[in-house]
Amino acid sequence: MAEVKLLGVRGSPFVTRVVIALKLKGIEYEFLEENLGNKSELLLKYNPIHKTVPVLVHNEKPILESLIIVEYIDEVFNGNSILPKEPYQRALARFWSKFIDDKIVSSVKKAVFTLDEVEREKGIEESLEALQFLEDDLKTKFFGGDEIGFLDIAALIIAYWVPIFQEVTGLQIFTSEKFPKLYNWSQELINHPIIKETLPPREPLLAFFKARIEGLSASK
Amino acid sequence: MAEVKLLGVRGSPFVTRVVIALKLKGIEYEFLEENLGNKSELLLKYNPIHKTVPVLVHNEKPILESLIIVEYIDEVFNGNSILPKEPYQRALARFWSKFIDDKIVSSVKKAVFTLDEVEREKGIEESLEALQFLEDDLKTKFFGGDEIGFLDIAALIIAYWVPIFQEVTGLQIFTSEKFPKLYNWSQELINHPIIKETLPPREPLLAFFKARIEGLSASK
Repeated sequence: MAEVKLLGVRGSPFVTRVVIALKLKGIEYEFLEENLGNKSELLLKYNPIHKTVPVLVHNEKPILESLIIVEYIDEVFNGNSILPKEPYQRALARFWSKFIDDKIVSSVKKAVFTLDEVEREKGIEESLEALQFLEDDLKTKFFGGDEIGFLDIAALIIAYWVPIFQEVTGLQIFTSEKFPKLYNWSQELINHPIIKETLPPREPLLAFFKARIEGLSASK
Repeated sequence: MAEVKLLGVRGSPFVTRVVIALKLKGIEYEFLEENLGNKSELLLKYNPIHKTVPVLVHNEKPILESLIIVEYIDEVFNGNSILPKEPYQRALARFWSKFIDDKIVSSVKKAVFTLDEVEREKGIEESLEALQFLEDDLKTKFFGGDEIGFLDIAALIIAYWVPIFQEVTGLQIFTSEKFPKLYNWSQELINHPIIKETLPPREPLLAFFKARIEGLSASK
């Protein structure tokens, strides 16, 4: 058995965070593909609370929650640091990554995965407001400076998944006109060698989210 | 001006987390009491995104979000460690503190701050389920072992504020019968010297939350 195992699904932005962290550190690992429609006994054993992926298993012990897993990987394995070394910069990286998960992801989801027009408009408005804060915060090529770091990994969902949601729905939330700095950052990020080879293929994701959004009206 | 300032309100469980961390490290600080009905320019300057307390200001730089502030304090100041030293234990402490904020606090709030009976029942059920996971995880006197640590600080809201919510509403969620280990832990925690001298007085909190809950029906 490999020392490091990752329970995940290939298309998930949260699982992708962990894969990138493992690659940045050069860690060998075994990927155990989950079927979320029929969860494995291993997943239910290791994550009985949330029953979600990613789960990192290191020396038979499970670590849960993508950002907590990335911090764990950074602390346990040698190699380039993923979080900044300086405590204030670390606090900022943690703050913004929490902001992405709590505010940006949730408001984009609200805009995308709904049939209610009022809810959608509210989601769009909240998304634009939240993205503006992140746009204003971006001062360097990557959030980590010249190299990608914790916040870039956390924010990859904006660079790669949000444009897919937009293509499926026709919504215009994250655009180069509205957020020029974030847009340039997103292009740098998805073309970074490690990110590029890790991102799940676009076409199956488009099909997956198209089906999911069409499913909203089917089950209305 | 003091090097360390804390913008807060005395009754907040989230502000109290930061006060305890500062006391555990023996840090001198200036407490700047906010009036949340009329927020100070300093608060709006330092936390334009959420406009909430606590905000720690260290060398004129703001740090936001109570758990991120506690980690920052632990990293920057000497003295006893607040987070565990061992990476796996750190990951667990982070996981459970996130679980408290995302699951326990939100489901207790759902049960307490509503007039909708269906919503309340759902909140109670979710609270009981979430607390059970925490009960099952508790193996030592404190979550941090013999001494209080990060997760005890995060969970103080359960030990002190939840019983106040229960007294105001008559709800029975967190009881010694249902959660004997957590209940014993809560008694140890609120009688710990540093915690005891830090907790805001109970009577004004009772009055505050009573008014807030009565306000729900007034504005129905």
